[in-house]
Amino acid sequence: MRVDKRKLSSTLAAASAWLCVALLHGCVSPPPRATGDLGIIIERADGAVQIVDTTHRHSLAKISGLGDLSHASAVYSRDARYAYVFGRDGGLTKIDLLNARIEKRIIQSGNAIGGAISQDGKIVAVSNYEPGGVKLFDAVTLDLISEIPAVDSAGKRSKVVGLVDAPGNRFVFSLFDAGEIWVADARDPRQPVVHKHLNVGRQPYDGTVTPDGRHYVAGLFGEDGLVLLDLWNESAGVKRVVAGYGKGSQPLPVYKMPHLDNWAMSQTSAYVPAVGRHEVLAIDTGAWLEKVHIPVAGQPVFVVARPDGRHIWVNYAPPHNDTVQVIDVLTHQIIQTLHPGKAILHMEFTPRGEQVWLSVRDDDRVDVYDTETFQRIASIPAAKPSGIFFTYRAHRIGL
Amino acid sequence: MRVDKRKLSSTLAAASAWLCVALLHGCVSPPPRATGDLGIIIERADGAVQIVDTTHRHSLAKISGLGDLSHASAVYSRDARYAYVFGRDGGLTKIDLLNARIEKRIIQSGNAIGGAISQDGKIVAVSNYEPGGVKLFDAVTLDLISEIPAVDSAGKRSKVVGLVDAPGNRFVFSLFDAGEIWVADARDPRQPVVHKHLNVGRQPYDGTVTPDGRHYVAGLFGEDGLVLLDLWNESAGVKRVVAGYGKGSQPLPVYKMPHLDNWAMSQTSAYVPAVGRHEVLAIDTGAWLEKVHIPVAGQPVFVVARPDGRHIWVNYAPPHNDTVQVIDVLTHQIIQTLHPGKAILHMEFTPRGEQVWLSVRDDDRVDVYDTETFQRIASIPAAKPSGIFFTYRAHRIGL
Repeated sequence: MRVDKRKLSSTLAAASAWLCVALLHGCVSPPPRATGDLGIIIERADGAVQIVDTTHRHSLAKISGLGDLSHASAVYSRDARYAYVFGRDGGLTKIDLLNARIEKRIIQSGNAIGGAISQDGKIVAVSNYEPGGVKLFDAVTLDLISEIPAVDSAGKRSKVVGLVDAPGNRFVFSLFDAGEIWVADARDPRQPVVHKHLNVGRQPYDGTVTPDGRHYVAGLFGEDGLVLLDLWNESAGVKRVVAGYGKGSQPLPVYKMPHLDNWAMSQTSAYVPAVGRHEVLAIDTGAWLEKVHIPVAGQPVFVVARPDGRHIWVNYAPPHNDTVQVIDVLTHQIIQTLHPGKAILHMEFTPRGEQVWLSVRDDDRVDVYDTETFQRIASIPAAKPSGIFFTYRAHRIGL
Repeated sequence: MRVDKRKLSSTLAAASAWLCVALLHGCVSPPPRATGDLGIIIERADGAVQIVDTTHRHSLAKISGLGDLSHASAVYSRDARYAYVFGRDGGLTKIDLLNARIEKRIIQSGNAIGGAISQDGKIVAVSNYEPGGVKLFDAVTLDLISEIPAVDSAGKRSKVVGLVDAPGNRFVFSLFDAGEIWVADARDPRQPVVHKHLNVGRQPYDGTVTPDGRHYVAGLFGEDGLVLLDLWNESAGVKRVVAGYGKGSQPLPVYKMPHLDNWAMSQTSAYVPAVGRHEVLAIDTGAWLEKVHIPVAGQPVFVVARPDGRHIWVNYAPPHNDTVQVIDVLTHQIIQTLHPGKAILHMEFTPRGEQVWLSVRDDDRVDVYDTETFQRIASIPAAKPSGIFFTYRAHRIGL
């Protein structure tokens, strides 16, 4: 037999190339893994996210190209594989945690403020400032399904804030300019049915829902108090609650609006930041009245409960943003004052509460604390980290 | 150039074999997937489990060889990849959901009744009837770490029941024969520190913990009432609550002991099955007093809350085990009576509550219902199905 040497070489080269491809895609690919102990850290300065592992407390990957991530937030698909990241620039990015890559990215508006995912996991909703409204997207393809323009009775567009999901494939949100709260039933997402609650108060600036999805609460920027809507009894309309919220003695200038993203609920109380004051308010969630003011180190930004509800962790606006305090809910005493570093922006607990992860923005790292000993047990470099979001959120109402 | 034909053939054959191996192991392997929407169904007759997917509502795999699975239960690893299945025959089986296979299986005692996983996910605890006690295993290897023999003050061994996890890497359980509740602090799992609460009442037959991990409650078989231990204030000891539980008019013969595995909690009430009576009790969880008796179709076995707490679902002991009822918590009225099939053994909600899965044992299938419309939306063949356990449990205290 005679064989052309060049032909043989090229045959073997082709076989090798094929093998390389097979190896790259198959044999050398990482072993299968689950995502129940994963999460993402938003790196606002780099327009990137890191994928992190809370079992080994380290970073697995960094993914760039997410645009402007100031004030970014995220929700998860029901299988906890994909994170949907909502950017300030109107970007909606679907991240595949298993392959550590962007699955899809769209620019869905000019200026967005947050999002939510429906109870059945099929619809991703995004709330927009510019133009004001809510858009519904297919969670698999990110194709636009429908749009709910936030146009008030006078025909004026309004910024949309405080968007959350609620049981029954509903989305609830507030119209900042119009002073309205809308409930959109998206069981048919092509034609969502909207119930409007008008004249709820001036400038609702954020909203949240209790962990059972029953009570939607919005904070008001233009006046005192909180607005409560009982979603189990929508026809009763909204109710003004916690009349003293931000009222009373002369409030301090507000350095940073507090967040209402997560209700810190424990036993029969909710713990919320007082606007412009060095206080955390405990609210009785039966009567929806203020129960006690707890003096703290600064103007609270996030007030979050450890998942068992025993402790409340608080971070602060400048100039006290180097401080984190821990309140015991039985005594309402501060039992720990930590100074983890410069500019603590966010706190995220592991779902059963043994760890808390803190974004230390101006020190470019995320620190992990043991919530029993208050000792730092890990530290992960990150470029100007802000929000931290773990995958357990896939399985919670309102997150 | 001259090339030996046989040599070339064998070179290409070797390359082909290598390619086949590469293909089998790599390119042809199933695509990566996450586990957030998975769960297992116990098939008690076959000693098997099915792995199911709640997004597509179908079965992915069946795994045999798990031994005697009557009264089996399961917990999940913190990454939601592995299920630990506790069999009645003392078997402890670690199932890998991604590779659909038994990762490891041991026989750890003669007769077991249930298990739990520590807050940090590192320790699996199993409670045993024979010999009575709790064993702690390494969650990765299933190696025995330590043992807590359930020996009372008179030196007598006791069956252990109602084992749950609590924050601080603690395990809480009841000694049936001794009438004691023990709290084991397993922060050092090689040397767990045990606090014993003696003389809590006669024959605690099951126990559970509230979703925040604060209140441990045991039911008594030997006398009326429930026993409450506040884990935030253990030194106060146990308290007898709900004195009327099972008391009053002559109770009916008990056909099946009700379960206390899951607290049905909603707003400020807990809903529990009344022993031997056709009633569900609503208990005020502030004062721990009975609030109302709700008449139902039979002797309740499981009383579970939809994750948003709006509805309570109830199944029954024979002869009413073909029936499931739904109670509205606002009115305490029964709003639905379903007859899904023969011998409804268990009910499991998806974590955000849009679906409930029912084991219909004697019809050899698991049915999936939409919890808003009460319509059956899927049905999956299964051999004498009993318990159903979804992976969201990885992220909850006490489950």
